[in-house]
Amino acid sequence: MSKLPNITTSIFSVMSQLANDYGAINLSQGFPNFPVDERLLQISERLLRENIHQYTPMAGLPLLMERIAALTAKNYQRNVNIATEMLITAGATQGVFTALNTFINQGDEVLILDPSYDSYEPSVLVAGGKPVRISLNEDYAPNFNKIEDAISAKTKMIVINNPHNPTGRIWTEEEFQTLEQILEKHPQVLILGDEVYEYISFSHPHISFNSRPKLIERTIVASSFGKSLHVTGWKVGYLIAPEKLMYEMKKVHQFLVFSVNSFSQHAIAEYLNVVDFSEVAKMYKRKRDLFQNLLKDSRFELMPCDGTYFQVVNYNQISTKNDVDFAKELITNHSVAAIPISVFYNDATDRNMLRFCFAKTDETLIAAAEKLKEV
Amino acid sequence: MSKLPNITTSIFSVMSQLANDYGAINLSQGFPNFPVDERLLQISERLLRENIHQYTPMAGLPLLMERIAALTAKNYQRNVNIATEMLITAGATQGVFTALNTFINQGDEVLILDPSYDSYEPSVLVAGGKPVRISLNEDYAPNFNKIEDAISAKTKMIVINNPHNPTGRIWTEEEFQTLEQILEKHPQVLILGDEVYEYISFSHPHISFNSRPKLIERTIVASSFGKSLHVTGWKVGYLIAPEKLMYEMKKVHQFLVFSVNSFSQHAIAEYLNVVDFSEVAKMYKRKRDLFQNLLKDSRFELMPCDGTYFQVVNYNQISTKNDVDFAKELITNHSVAAIPISVFYNDATDRNMLRFCFAKTDETLIAAAEKLKEV
Ligand SMILES: CSCCC(=O)C(=O)O
Ligand SMILES: CSCCC(=O)C(=O)O
Repeated sequence: MSKLPNITTSIFSVMSQLANDYGAINLSQGFPNFPVDERLLQISERLLRENIHQYTPMAGLPLLMERIAALTAKNYQRNVNIATEMLITAGATQGVFTALNTFINQGDEVLILDPSYDSYEPSVLVAGGKPVRISLNEDYAPNFNKIEDAISAKTKMIVINNPHNPTGRIWTEEEFQTLEQILEKHPQVLILGDEVYEYISFSHPHISFNSRPKLIERTIVASSFGKSLHVTGWKVGYLIAPEKLMYEMKKVHQFLVFSVNSFSQHAIAEYLNVVDFSEVAKMYKRKRDLFQNLLKDSRFELMPCDGTYFQVVNYNQISTKNDVDFAKELITNHSVAAIPISVFYNDATDRNMLRFCFAKTDETLIAAAEKLKEV
Repeated sequence: MSKLPNITTSIFSVMSQLANDYGAINLSQGFPNFPVDERLLQISERLLRENIHQYTPMAGLPLLMERIAALTAKNYQRNVNIATEMLITAGATQGVFTALNTFINQGDEVLILDPSYDSYEPSVLVAGGKPVRISLNEDYAPNFNKIEDAISAKTKMIVINNPHNPTGRIWTEEEFQTLEQILEKHPQVLILGDEVYEYISFSHPHISFNSRPKLIERTIVASSFGKSLHVTGWKVGYLIAPEKLMYEMKKVHQFLVFSVNSFSQHAIAEYLNVVDFSEVAKMYKRKRDLFQNLLKDSRFELMPCDGTYFQVVNYNQISTKNDVDFAKELITNHSVAAIPISVFYNDATDRNMLRFCFAKTDETLIAAAEKLKEV
């Protein structure tokens, strides 16, 4: 009878809870532990007294949508019509769920690249669709042979998360071109691009689906401000898609949630006038470098990290335990919480890897590294 | 290909937009035009500087859940276990959608009582279910013969909105007893009780499904603070259900939205310590009486209003136009916006009725009545 018979409590909740129970430093669930920008708080404080506490328009606050459109034009050279091509969602999670539940019908197949964020598969299942999981290569690059082989007449959508949680990998220009070539032969396949870490890239620039004219007509981009503005609790995200796709998603959104928290929409709209996302990227690059430097002398092997605020490490030299058990041991014996990478795989593939979130104060990162060096 | 081929822009958006375009007094979409309680704003202001901007736990902020449980115990003598029987949602709309999309499978039938709120049917359709619409009696009482006739082996759920939008009617003790008798024979039928106006009842007390021990095991109660605390834009609602039902809804919620705006949850949690819902009911009773008195000398015929903040009127004495056209004429010629009741019926049944929202300042109600008396 359950639509999600195999789902238990999310690993993010489990690990955050365990971290609390044992008083461990929580580098598991992805959220910052430093304060919100004082400018955003001041904007919020002023707005509180204004008339902003009733429903915004169903598709979103126009001022916020205009500001997002301006960013999309500036960063990706795409002009988005906010009346027909944009929707404000209660976080990217709701955007992803809405996209999948708008277009996936009973039996439709959806390609998901492993390891993948944990919400895609269940959202497909609730819609009655069939998730088809495809492994990324060892270096987390897309395996286009496998992708091509997996596409069938039943394939309705492919979900691509870029920059990639948990591995921090970012797609290259070449990879986008290869995808474009492959999909030319399959006009029925839609793309859902989850770009919530669009503003957190380091080594080479993030390429958005919004900047790919060949793909735009079939692409839904989901993003959010939770990660880039350090307010994961606010739950303000957005979808961008061509009108014919957006038209259908708005209908579902209207009855799924109707509208999104008005106060947060107003505050973010004003804040977008002053915030500089390149500063956000710089700050996280510095934190990545700090964390990597701190762990250099540890027995953890650092994997590359081109974006997001997650660092994956291999612990082969330390333990042969599976990653879930090792993550628990790390909490109980060393007071640091991380996410075991196996949870991002359909088959729980264990590669002796953990994910650490470095969206933390320098003090927290230093304290965590001290403990990790002792492992 | 569309899951909702017949859906166009919601009447609430259409009418609010028209009201704006024509500078009409907007008594259409249900939201207050008076300021939020100063105490809630002060709580919010203080909380802004606290560490409340990251994800709350997936199922909701524990303090908020405790306060809701305390209210449920006090008002309905039901002890709710917040760990297993409660979920905070992004408004009742998301609660209703989540309940339907958790339990309704392809082909399952859902009973909906006409006239009904506009989100039930599309939420059933997105889930692949079949809405079965049953007319209420002329006085908007449930027609139990029709309900009994409509129940089949395929019936999975019945949606009951009480107090009732748009008519303001409230179910009686007798009606609950009759429902209990009927459902005894149909153990597979779940109840979704939409009680967002639970704190806005006048003539006789609102009876919650939470106070019906015979039904609790099969009932999901959806409610929200948007209406009762005058913050429709905040989108904070909740679901209460027995563990076996809640367990499945939490799974869907986790991947549909994960969590709800943290700031609003914290603020409402604290405010629940000081707010007195009986004052809210009193305030709305006074507004209802004011609005009814003002319209006594008009050519509109007032229908009974036992709860909610909506007043339904009949305009038979004024026009033979259908209600959609008449509502538009009212905006363009008389500068008052209302909702035509036909939109709440599956077959757009036209009874020459309009719904006015009286959640407005006295000045607004007086100004609107001035105009309506001239019609
Ligand atoms: C929604 S809780 C998970 C947060 C997150 O994005 C992550 O830790 O990967
Ligand atoms: C979600 S917009 C509609 C508001 C409302 O509940 C109503 O006007 O009936």
